[in-house]
Formats: sequence, C-alpha cells, structure tokens
Amino acid sequence: MEYAADINAVREAARRIAPFIHRTPVMTSEAVNHIAGRELFFKCENFQKVGAFKMRGASNAVMKLPDEVAKRGVVTHSSGNFAQALALAAKLRGIEAHIVMPRTAPSVKRLAVEGYGATIYQCEPTLVAREATAAEVIEKTGGTLLHPYNHPDIIAGQGTCALELLEEVPDLDAIIAPIGGGGLMSGICIAARAIDPNITLIAAEPAGADDAYRSFQTGELIPQTGPNTIADGLLTSLGDLTWPIVRDYLRCIITVEDDRIIEAMRLIWQRMKIIIEPSAAVPVAAVMSDGFASMSNLKRVGIVLSGGNVDLDRLPW
Amino acid sequence: MEYAADINAVREAARRIAPFIHRTPVMTSEAVNHIAGRELFFKCENFQKVGAFKMRGASNAVMKLPDEVAKRGVVTHSSGNFAQALALAAKLRGIEAHIVMPRTAPSVKRLAVEGYGATIYQCEPTLVAREATAAEVIEKTGGTLLHPYNHPDIIAGQGTCALELLEEVPDLDAIIAPIGGGGLMSGICIAARAIDPNITLIAAEPAGADDAYRSFQTGELIPQTGPNTIADGLLTSLGDLTWPIVRDYLRCIITVEDDRIIEAMRLIWQRMKIIIEPSAAVPVAAVMSDGFASMSNLKRVGIVLSGGNVDLDRLPW
Repeated sequence: MEYAADINAVREAARRIAPFIHRTPVMTSEAVNHIAGRELFFKCENFQKVGAFKMRGASNAVMKLPDEVAKRGVVTHSSGNFAQALALAAKLRGIEAHIVMPRTAPSVKRLAVEGYGATIYQCEPTLVAREATAAEVIEKTGGTLLHPYNHPDIIAGQGTCALELLEEVPDLDAIIAPIGGGGLMSGICIAARAIDPNITLIAAEPAGADDAYRSFQTGELIPQTGPNTIADGLLTSLGDLTWPIVRDYLRCIITVEDDRIIEAMRLIWQRMKIIIEPSAAVPVAAVMSDGFASMSNLKRVGIVLSGGNVDLDRLPW
Repeated sequence: MEYAADINAVREAARRIAPFIHRTPVMTSEAVNHIAGRELFFKCENFQKVGAFKMRGASNAVMKLPDEVAKRGVVTHSSGNFAQALALAAKLRGIEAHIVMPRTAPSVKRLAVEGYGATIYQCEPTLVAREATAAEVIEKTGGTLLHPYNHPDIIAGQGTCALELLEEVPDLDAIIAPIGGGGLMSGICIAARAIDPNITLIAAEPAGADDAYRSFQTGELIPQTGPNTIADGLLTSLGDLTWPIVRDYLRCIITVEDDRIIEAMRLIWQRMKIIIEPSAAVPVAAVMSDGFASMSNLKRVGIVLSGGNVDLDRLPW
C-alpha cells in the first residue's frame, strides 16, 4: 500500500466503529446556500460523540488493538478533542486511558476527560515535557501510544465520515474539510477519491497556522511553528503519514483569516441553529472566500463541520 | 366539533403545508437522558423555517385562504416569530403581508420581517395601539387578520409537529411543550390524543408568566398581566379557542423559574450542540424539575424545542 490507509481500511473501520459512534446527520440551509451561491451539504461531526470527529479515529484505533495489547491500556498526549475521544473509546472497550496533559490546559477539558474515567498526568506545557511524560507512563503501564492523527488506524477512522457523507449525498462535486495535523483530511481523501475518482478535494486552513498551505505550495513538509489563530484544533503540524496523502490528493489548500472564521462561525450559529467550534468554521469561511469563488464548477460541495466544543462563556464576538 | 380543531384538521394541515415547511429532525442525547433519568426525544422546531414552529400554523392559515380572499393580503400584529412566519408564508403564496409592530421592537426583528418582503406598520407599544393600527390596515387593504394563536387554522397547523413526532417515535409516554398563548400546546393535544388515547400531555410555563398555570388550577381563564420572564415567546394570555383544549387535555402545567430556564438552555447548547431560545428551554427545565420527578412512569418523553431565535450578542449567562 502506497499510503498509510486505503479504502478497505476505511470500510473496515466503518464496520468496526459503527456500534460506538453516531452516524451524524447531513444538514442543509437554503439561507446559507443563497449566501454561498452553491449547494452546501454539512456533515455534522459537531453532533458526534464527545462533540467532534475525533471519536471515529480513536474508537477505530482502540477497538482494533488485540486483547492482550489492549488490556495494558492506551496513552496519548493531548489537551483537545482527541483526549476526550480516546478516554471514551477506552471506557467503551473497558480498558484504561492515560492522558498526558499540559498543566495549563483549562480545567473544563481536564474534567471532561476525567468524566470518561481516564487518568490524567499533568506536565509542563512543552512538547519535550509531554513526550517525556508519555514515555514514562508507557514504561510504567506498558500501554500503547496512540498518536492523535499520524497513525494509520486514526486516518482510516476519520475517513469514515466521508463514506457516510457520500452514501447520503452521492453526487458531490467536492468535499472541503479543515486541516491541522491532517488526520481528518487524509482519511477523507482516501475514502472519497476511491468512491468517486472525479471528486475535488480541498483543505481549509487558518492563515495563522498555515503549515499545510506552505508545505503544499513548496512540495516539502514544513512544520508549524508559533501558530496564532482562534481555530485551536488546527495548531499542529502535518505528520509523515498524513502529508503524502494530502500532497497527492488535494486540489488546493485555502487559507482564511481569523475574522473570516469568526464571521463564518456566527453565520452557521445564526442561520442553522447549530453550534460549531472555530476550527469547524474554517472550511465554511473558505467556501465563502474569493479563493473559492473562481471554482464555479463546484456546485454541490460537502463541508465537514469537524466539532462543536466551545466555551460558551468566551465567545469570539 | 367541540373544539377549534380536530385530528382531521391537523392531518389536512400536514398535507397542505408539507411543501412549505421542514420536516424537522427528532434528536436524542445520551448525556441529557442520563441527567434527566429518562429517555427524551427532542422535536427540533428550532430548525424549522424562520427558526420556530410558528411557520406551521402561519403557512396552514395562509395556504388555506380562498384565492379571492388571499389576494387582498394578510395582516397581524406581532414582533416575534409569528411575524416572520406570516411574512414568509405570504411570500411563498405570492401575496402581501402587513405586519403591525411596536416601534420599540428590536431593529433585527424588523429587518428579518422586511427581508421576507412584508410591509411593516409601526405603532405605539400598547395593545390598544396595535389593534387600532391593525384595524386601519385592514380597512385600507381588505386584508385578512390572522391571530398568532387563537385561530383554528393556526392551532391545526401547530399540531402537525406532534403528528411528525409520533410518526417517528410512536411509543411515547408523554409530550411536553411550552405554553404561552396555547396555539402550539392545544394543537399538540388534539393531534397526540387522537393518535394515542393513553398519552400524557404536559405544558411547561415560565413562573414569571404563569397565566395558564393559574387558569388551569382555578378552572377559569385568567389573562396574563405584567409578565416578567426571559422566555419572551411566552408572554401572552391563552385565547378562548386554546383554553378549552388545554383545560380538558392536559395532565398538568409545570412552572419553572428563569434561572432554571437559563440552566436548561445552556445544557442543551452544551451537550446537544444546538441553539434553542429561552422559550424552548422551558419544557427542558420542567422535565428536570422536582415537579416532574414524581411522574416516574413517564419513561419516554417527547419535548418540543419550539424555536432557536436568540440574539448572539446578548446571551443570558
């Protein structure tokens, strides 16, 4: 296999995780279509368990572990949606989850992860400290490290959202999704292109964390340094497994500024009455952008709304 | 017919309005079920056109008018969701809507109604001024006055949401909905009881506008005076058509304080990632209340989330 996952892996993932995830709805809005000047189909992963698509990859990876490996538990370092997803997937399998989290993480995120019964290990807020702490935990528990995105089973799991979207709306011209580490986008690429060889695949990225854009432009994997954006789910760099897929499958990567992201987020709240987080608003902003306007042949566009976890006391408007 | 509407009128309404409304989804949430200690089925009228169930009654009344009456237009006085619903229904029929609105109404509401092509007539913010202005408009245009709730076609139209809910979840023990003027609740009563003679019907009302509760307790229609609640869709009094239905069909009316309403609204936003307005949170708060706890035999409860129109710049927390 040339890439970290193929359509068979995505289809197996879909069967494996079906009992543990929601088949999320695809929503439409005449009002938003009117503004966008095309037909948009929103795959609502904000309604997914733990409020984000991360539950797909996490449950695929956790459920796929052989029993004798699984029983020693799973380990990751994350303070975001993946931590919650891994905690819940482990709980559903009846194994332990060990989550390394910077001590600066908001207490609401800590509480959510603890609510799923995971053990939290606090560390200094640096990558070095996170990796060192995770290594200690693995040493002690024998648990399996699961990377939030740069992992074949995670990529295959995230791709299942494109399977569902194309089952429900088979005749899409394009799918657009946010890109951070690339787990979601690469999974979608693998799944969607296998189902429809003519489909256009587009990633949307915050201008303040545009490593994928710069990598794509130069053809070289460029890591993210010093990201600065409200889309806090998209701060990470591409990985060596996700990068070749997005490099080869994407038509383009569209970057959007934070004020456009906030505008798009508010538009979806207002018109569709659903709650999406800033990261999920990034592809919405991209579809409304000048960069997208030139692609007038893309009349029916699927948009993955990646998550809905926001702090209701700190809205960005 | 003993009451203003019967099940046949509701079924006719459902056929009549089908092309003009959304069949809204029924959502569930394991997290919210866990908190409530029962299975809840949320009929999402916040996703209805114009963001509220009002579109059902308005389109039934507008589409049912004979051509020679319809062509003179429709008239109402309202500053809330019914104004928008009537404006859109009239637009869809290709007739004029004349909306009398107090000059104190927020400009965002005026703009929304104008956006649907209706004509707005501003008046002083008193009932006397509203009725006088409406009478003038009718005199001038020959338009038909449509009351927001105390009207047989409005009642029948609102009842269609119970038809859909029971089609999708046939084995409910109870349905609970907010009560203001009683159009929604009375329509639900007529529809649901005809389909399932054993179903329990419950209304939820803000403690700060509890005319229906007091009417129900005393057996006499008591008008609302000086309402004071965040649930701004539920300020009105019952009408002489809605009152006999709720009087005869309801098991009880549960009142809830504003702080409980805000808590319930936030819970739904947080856990279900959908936007509901305070009035829609009233039955959610009621289901979580001590008053509901005693009804432990009601295991599967339908809740009508009546609307999702909120000012995102002025959230109540």
